[in-house]
Amino acid sequence: MSVLITGVAGFIGSNLAKLFIESGETVLGLDSLSRGAIDNLVDVIADSSFHFKVIDCSDQIAFVSAVIDFHAKSPITEVWHMAANSDIPAGVNDASVDLKDTFMTTFNVLEVMKALHIKVLAFASSSAVYGDHGIERISEVSGPLLPLSNYGAMKLASEAAISAAAESFLDRAFVYRFPNVIGVPATHGVLLDFVNKLKVTPDRLDVLGNGSQQKAYLHVSDLIDGMLHIRRNALEKMCVYNLGAEDAGVSVKAIAQSVVANASPSAKIVYGTGDRGWVGDVPKFKYSLDKLKKLGWAPRLNSQQAIDKAIAEIICQERNAK
Amino acid sequence: MSVLITGVAGFIGSNLAKLFIESGETVLGLDSLSRGAIDNLVDVIADSSFHFKVIDCSDQIAFVSAVIDFHAKSPITEVWHMAANSDIPAGVNDASVDLKDTFMTTFNVLEVMKALHIKVLAFASSSAVYGDHGIERISEVSGPLLPLSNYGAMKLASEAAISAAAESFLDRAFVYRFPNVIGVPATHGVLLDFVNKLKVTPDRLDVLGNGSQQKAYLHVSDLIDGMLHIRRNALEKMCVYNLGAEDAGVSVKAIAQSVVANASPSAKIVYGTGDRGWVGDVPKFKYSLDKLKKLGWAPRLNSQQAIDKAIAEIICQERNAK
Repeated sequence: MSVLITGVAGFIGSNLAKLFIESGETVLGLDSLSRGAIDNLVDVIADSSFHFKVIDCSDQIAFVSAVIDFHAKSPITEVWHMAANSDIPAGVNDASVDLKDTFMTTFNVLEVMKALHIKVLAFASSSAVYGDHGIERISEVSGPLLPLSNYGAMKLASEAAISAAAESFLDRAFVYRFPNVIGVPATHGVLLDFVNKLKVTPDRLDVLGNGSQQKAYLHVSDLIDGMLHIRRNALEKMCVYNLGAEDAGVSVKAIAQSVVANASPSAKIVYGTGDRGWVGDVPKFKYSLDKLKKLGWAPRLNSQQAIDKAIAEIICQERNAK
Repeated sequence: MSVLITGVAGFIGSNLAKLFIESGETVLGLDSLSRGAIDNLVDVIADSSFHFKVIDCSDQIAFVSAVIDFHAKSPITEVWHMAANSDIPAGVNDASVDLKDTFMTTFNVLEVMKALHIKVLAFASSSAVYGDHGIERISEVSGPLLPLSNYGAMKLASEAAISAAAESFLDRAFVYRFPNVIGVPATHGVLLDFVNKLKVTPDRLDVLGNGSQQKAYLHVSDLIDGMLHIRRNALEKMCVYNLGAEDAGVSVKAIAQSVVANASPSAKIVYGTGDRGWVGDVPKFKYSLDKLKKLGWAPRLNSQQAIDKAIAEIICQERNAK
């Protein structure tokens, strides 16, 4: 019996792989290595229970044959589908990026699960499916769902296809709506962006937007813990959970200041204009985690603690990368 | 200045084309003729303001070049995107049907609008985006959106992509969430299905499910009127409206009895089991039309009146088709 992880060399996928391998599972990990990196798999790549293939999951023929081959030797009972585009602005400029890397990967995952009778799917969705709900505390039943970016749109499209599959041929589907997740191995996101900008210009940090955007952040250690808690305890067949910190979040300004203080204390911070960093950026965002709390889980770190921990980790990661 | 209608030879598209031509617009109508039929265009096909091409809008190259060619001669200012799969069970059996005919047509429409700076889009969405909300009166802000069929999933995926486009490059997007629409030219649906079954076996009508499914129906004349009312009067940039009848609807059993009474009074009605006709069928469904009523519109016909009118029209259509 084994678990398939798509996007295994990415930020979330690599953390999941480590945890599954540590708990004795056999893992088939797939990644196109377009945004993920083999270095992220350093803790598992030599383990005999970990099987890695460089596969673009949006390439139906290559993907399906790799899964069929593996399944014949070690039946897959569960899929953790983490492969997706993670570069939101890239998808705003070119809609085919999220179509291919986020939606078509999901479509192909569902097709192969249907064909091989694999019945349990866990999916990395996003708070971006909600769009801009102003000051409303957003719960899992909040509507309308009007995503502002193709990233959010193709996450919602994926959820929709999974919902239809749950009605038709899956036994269980777990849809995790993440907010901003931080930690290592960092592959993208505002913290890595700031740390890397300061490596190039140690005396100056340019911030997109006026810095007033404020969001909740979840540390990846809490994210993984929360996903597994839901996997073990939730009862619905098609099961959707907000997963995040419930605090008011941390502003981009405060993040910029923390990164500067830790990475390059003498740098001057220069802000742009407007309250959105890019098309599709939601300026403020507040989650209701009532459903998840009722299931008996809450994150250990609040947004500020998660930011502090992740800044330290990312500075260390980038030093080692030199 | 002209209007592009995709799926122009289908049920809704052909009614729209007729209305636009009557009100003096120039129309480019595209249809793959896979489910639509040239016969449906009898009222407009000879009009010099109507320009028809057989194009599969999911074929990006063919579709985009046809639109670019036409736009160069008669600039398109508005797109009414009606092309979609309308066969829900077909899409349950093979997810690629709704992917191609519903979602990829929307994706291509958005790509060509972005490229040509066409700023206004009207889209035929569906009550199927909501999934099963039990006895709740469903409004436009109801959640969660968990469609039960690939049909509903790819309508929701289309809405999501349109929402992101409205944030990025469209001026206005009108998303109409239809319930069951009836009338002529009937190309699919329960009424046509029953009428045609009785043509084959005039003494017996087999009904999928136990007949208890109850839904609201809207006559196509009301649908078109409602869509244009929203187009003229709604103010939001990304504008989503439920469009339907607000009554409790009519059961499949009552519909079967009406069709038999009108088409073949001696036929015996034989019911299946279960309260769903097929995977993805929502057994009961109740719309809130408060938003639309606030905009000053309500359908002229209730569900029963719409059914009665449509049965008469469809029996006549099918007699003429002999």
